Amino acid sequence: MNSLLSTQQLSVNEVETILSRAQFFTKQDITWRTRATVVNLFYEPSTRTCLSFQQAAHALGLTVLDFTVERSSVQKGESLVDTLQTLDAIGVDLAIIRHQEDWPALTTGLNLRLSLINAGSGRYHHPTQALLDALTIQQSFGTLNGLKVTIIGDIFHSRVARSNAHLLKMLGATVQFAGPQQYFATDIPGIAWVDVDQAMEESDVIMMLRIQKERHVAQEYIVDYYEKYGLNDRRLKMIKKDAIILHPGPVNRNVEICDEAMTDPRCKILQQVKNGVAIRKAVIEWCLLGGHNEKLVSA
Amino acid sequence: MNSLLSTQQLSVNEVETILSRAQFFTKQDITWRTRATVVNLFYEPSTRTCLSFQQAAHALGLTVLDFTVERSSVQKGESLVDTLQTLDAIGVDLAIIRHQEDWPALTTGLNLRLSLINAGSGRYHHPTQALLDALTIQQSFGTLNGLKVTIIGDIFHSRVARSNAHLLKMLGATVQFAGPQQYFATDIPGIAWVDVDQAMEESDVIMMLRIQKERHVAQEYIVDYYEKYGLNDRRLKMIKKDAIILHPGPVNRNVEICDEAMTDPRCKILQQVKNGVAIRKAVIEWCLLGGHNEKLVSA
Amino acid sequence: MNSLLSTQQLSVNEVETILSRAQFFTKQDITWRTRATVVNLFYEPSTRTCLSFQQAAHALGLTVLDFTVERSSVQKGESLVDTLQTLDAIGVDLAIIRHQEDWPALTTGLNLRLSLINAGSGRYHHPTQALLDALTIQQSFGTLNGLKVTIIGDIFHSRVARSNAHLLKMLGATVQFAGPQQYFATDIPGIAWVDVDQAMEESDVIMMLRIQKERHVAQEYIVDYYEKYGLNDRRLKMIKKDAIILHPGPVNRNVEICDEAMTDPRCKILQQVKNGVAIRKAVIEWCLLGGHNEKLVSA
Repeated sequence: MNSLLSTQQLSVNEVETILSRAQFFTKQDITWRTRATVVNLFYEPSTRTCLSFQQAAHALGLTVLDFTVERSSVQKGESLVDTLQTLDAIGVDLAIIRHQEDWPALTTGLNLRLSLINAGSGRYHHPTQALLDALTIQQSFGTLNGLKVTIIGDIFHSRVARSNAHLLKMLGATVQFAGPQQYFATDIPGIAWVDVDQAMEESDVIMMLRIQKERHVAQEYIVDYYEKYGLNDRRLKMIKKDAIILHPGPVNRNVEICDEAMTDPRCKILQQVKNGVAIRKAVIEWCLLGGHNEKLVSA
Repeated sequence: MNSLLSTQQLSVNEVETILSRAQFFTKQDITWRTRATVVNLFYEPSTRTCLSFQQAAHALGLTVLDFTVERSSVQKGESLVDTLQTLDAIGVDLAIIRHQEDWPALTTGLNLRLSLINAGSGRYHHPTQALLDALTIQQSFGTLNGLKVTIIGDIFHSRVARSNAHLLKMLGATVQFAGPQQYFATDIPGIAWVDVDQAMEESDVIMMLRIQKERHVAQEYIVDYYEKYGLNDRRLKMIKKDAIILHPGPVNRNVEICDEAMTDPRCKILQQVKNGVAIRKAVIEWCLLGGHNEKLVSA
Repeated sequence: MNSLLSTQQLSVNEVETILSRAQFFTKQDITWRTRATVVNLFYEPSTRTCLSFQQAAHALGLTVLDFTVERSSVQKGESLVDTLQTLDAIGVDLAIIRHQEDWPALTTGLNLRLSLINAGSGRYHHPTQALLDALTIQQSFGTLNGLKVTIIGDIFHSRVARSNAHLLKMLGATVQFAGPQQYFATDIPGIAWVDVDQAMEESDVIMMLRIQKERHVAQEYIVDYYEKYGLNDRRLKMIKKDAIILHPGPVNRNVEICDEAMTDPRCKILQQVKNGVAIRKAVIEWCLLGGHNEKLVSA
C-alpha cells in the first residue's frame, strides 16, 4: 500500500494518473467489494476536507471509523506515533491525518501496514488540495502548461501555497506570489513576488488564500487588507476575461474576496470543492490499490 | 427534492400523508437501494433528535457523514450558508440542521440541490417534534379533532410550543398554554392562557415543556417551579383518566414532572421517542423521494 | 440478549467460550445479516477501546451511531439512566458505555431491551480489557493455570487491575501487585503485595499500569516514579527470558516503560490491541446472539 505525504514524492506520471482517474470520478462512481476501514485523524478543524474524504470513502464502499481528538487518548498525552501504531494493530487500513506539525517527518522508519494520507501538515504540505486545484485548472484550460498562476495572501502560513507552488510548476505552470510583505515565505525557492494589481491583470489563475487568523500572532494583523490585497470590486474588473478565481476555503467574505466575485462565472470555488471529492477517491484508490493489496477488489 | 423547514409550509393533506407513512414505519422497515448521504449539522446539543435522525437514516440505508461543529470550519468563522454550499458541492443529499437562530430565513434564494430538514431553529420551529407529538396523540385518541391540548411551561423559549400550537390546531385540536407569566409568548396568535390546575383537570393532552436553562437570563429563574407549575404528585391525581402526558425531553425530574408521573401508564414520553424515529423516516422519505429524484429507488 | 457489566458475572465456562471465539476471530471474519445498531457512550476519553469496539462492530456488519457526550443532552443535565431509556426507545440494540462512575449499579431494575457492555466504569470494572489480557497471556503460555502475574503501578485508580485480578485468578493464575504504597488498594481481597524488583525476577506476566494523572489529586504525585517503579533499562535485564510484558495503553514512555522495552520481543502491547478487536467481536456476539434474538442471523 502507498501513502501520500507530499506532492514532492510524486512523479509527473503519477500526478497525471491521479488527475485522470479523478476526472473519471467526476462523472462516474465505483464501489469496491471490501471491508477496508478508514479513520480521520483531524487535529485541526475542517469541514470541506474532512467531509470530502468521508464522502469519497463512503462512495468507494469503505467503512469510516469515528475519531474525535477531543475524546481520544490524545487527551491523556498519547503521541501521534503511538496512536498510529494502535490504529495499525486495530486493523485500520487508512489514516487520513491533519496536524499542526509537519507530522510525516515523525513517521519515518515506522513499520506500519496502514496507509497514510496527509490532509494538511502545519504550514508545509496539503497534497490533495494541490491536486484538486490542478484538476480544476486543467478542466478550464485543458493543460497547466504555460499558464501564469498567482497565489495571493498569507503565503507564509500556507500549506496550500507550498504544495501548489511545487505541483503546479511541476506540471508546467509559472507560479508567482503576491500579498503583504510580512507574509513572504523565504523557504520556497524560485518564485517571483509581484504586485497585486499586476497579478490581477496578467494571471490566468488567481488563487486567493485565507487569512489564517488562528496561526497569527498579534503583530501580523493587517489594516485595510481588503483594499490593499483583496479581490475587491475594483480588482474584479481588472482580471482577464478567461481567467479563473480559486480559493481553498473557507472564504472570509469581503476580506479576501468580494461578494460579487463569489458569484462571478470565473469563480471556481465550488467546483474546487466538487473536485475535492473526486481527487480524494483517486488518491484513496491509489493508496489502497496502488500496491499489492489482495483485500480490495474493485467492482 | 423537498425541504422541511416548518409546519407552516405543510398542507393538512401533506401532514396526513407523513403521519400515515410514519405509522407504517412503526410496524415495518424498508431499505432503499441508494447511495444518498446525510449530514447532521447540530449547532446545539441533542441526544434524542440527533440519534433518532441517525437511526432513521441508517434504517433506510442512507450513509451518515460525521460532522462536529467544534472541529469544523465553523471554528474559522464559516457561515451556515457557506457551509451549506460546501455540503452541496461535496454531493451531500440531505442536511439535518439544528441552530440557535431562525436559520431557514438565511437560506432563502440559495439555489441548493440538497434537501434541508429543520431539527430545531432557535425558539421558532421544530417541525419533526410537532409531527411526532401529533402521531403520539393520534395513536391514543384516533384523531386530533376536538381534543383539548395544554402546553405548560417555558412557552417563550420553546420551538416545541410554537410548532405544536400551529400543527395541532391545524389538525383540529384546541391548543392552550399554561405556566409562569414571564414565559408568556405574545407572538403566537389565538391561544388562550389558562391556570395550571384547571389545565390538568380539563385537558386530553398535557404537554409539559423543559425549563431551558441554557436560554435563560438570570432574572428568569423561578422559585418553587415544581410546586407552582410542575406536574407534581398533587396534580397527577387531578388529570383525566384517559388523558396523556407528553414531554419533548430531556426531562428535569421533579422540576417539570414527578417520578411517579414518569411511570404512570398515561405518560407517553418514551412512545414519543419511539415515534420520533418513524416520523423522521417518513420525513426523510418525503424530502428525498417526494420530488423527482431518480437516484433513490425504494426496495 | 445479554449484557457484560463485569468479570464477576461470568462463569469459567462462559469466559472460555468467549476466549475461544475471540481466538477464532483473530484468524477469520464473519458478517451478520442484520440491521442491529450500536452506540458508543464514552463519557471519558479513549482511543483504543472506542475504535476497537467500532472496528469490531463494523466488521460484524452492525451500524454504529455517532454519539458525542459534549454535544448531547448530557449537557442539559440528562442522567445516564434517562439516556439509556431514550436509546432503548430509539431502537438501539447495544450501548457500549465508559463512565467515571460505577454505572452498572445505576441500571439495576431498569427494564431495557438493549444490551449493555461495560467499556470502563470508574476505577471498578473493565471486563473486555481483562478478557483481552487473558487471551494475550493464553496465546503465549497456552494456559493461565499456574502462572505468576504481577500488576505494577497505580492499582488504586485502576479498573484494569481490579478486573484482571478477578479474572486471571479465576482462570488459575496467581496474581500479585507491586508499586507505590500510596496506590495500594485495600478493597481487593487475597492479593499479595511484592517488591518491584522481586516481581520482575519471578513473574511470567508483568502488567504495567498507566499513571492516571487525570484521576489524581496533587499529593499523589510521585517523584522518581520511573526509577522506583518503572520498567526501566535496569529492570528489563532482570525479567525472565520467556516472560511477557503487558500494558493497557496509552503508555507514558519513560515513565512506566522504557523505549527499549517497547520494542523487546517479550512486549505484547500491540498484540493486546489486536486481540482487543477479536475479544470485542466475541463479546458483542455473546451479548446479541447469546440469548434469544431472532433479528440476528450469522451469515
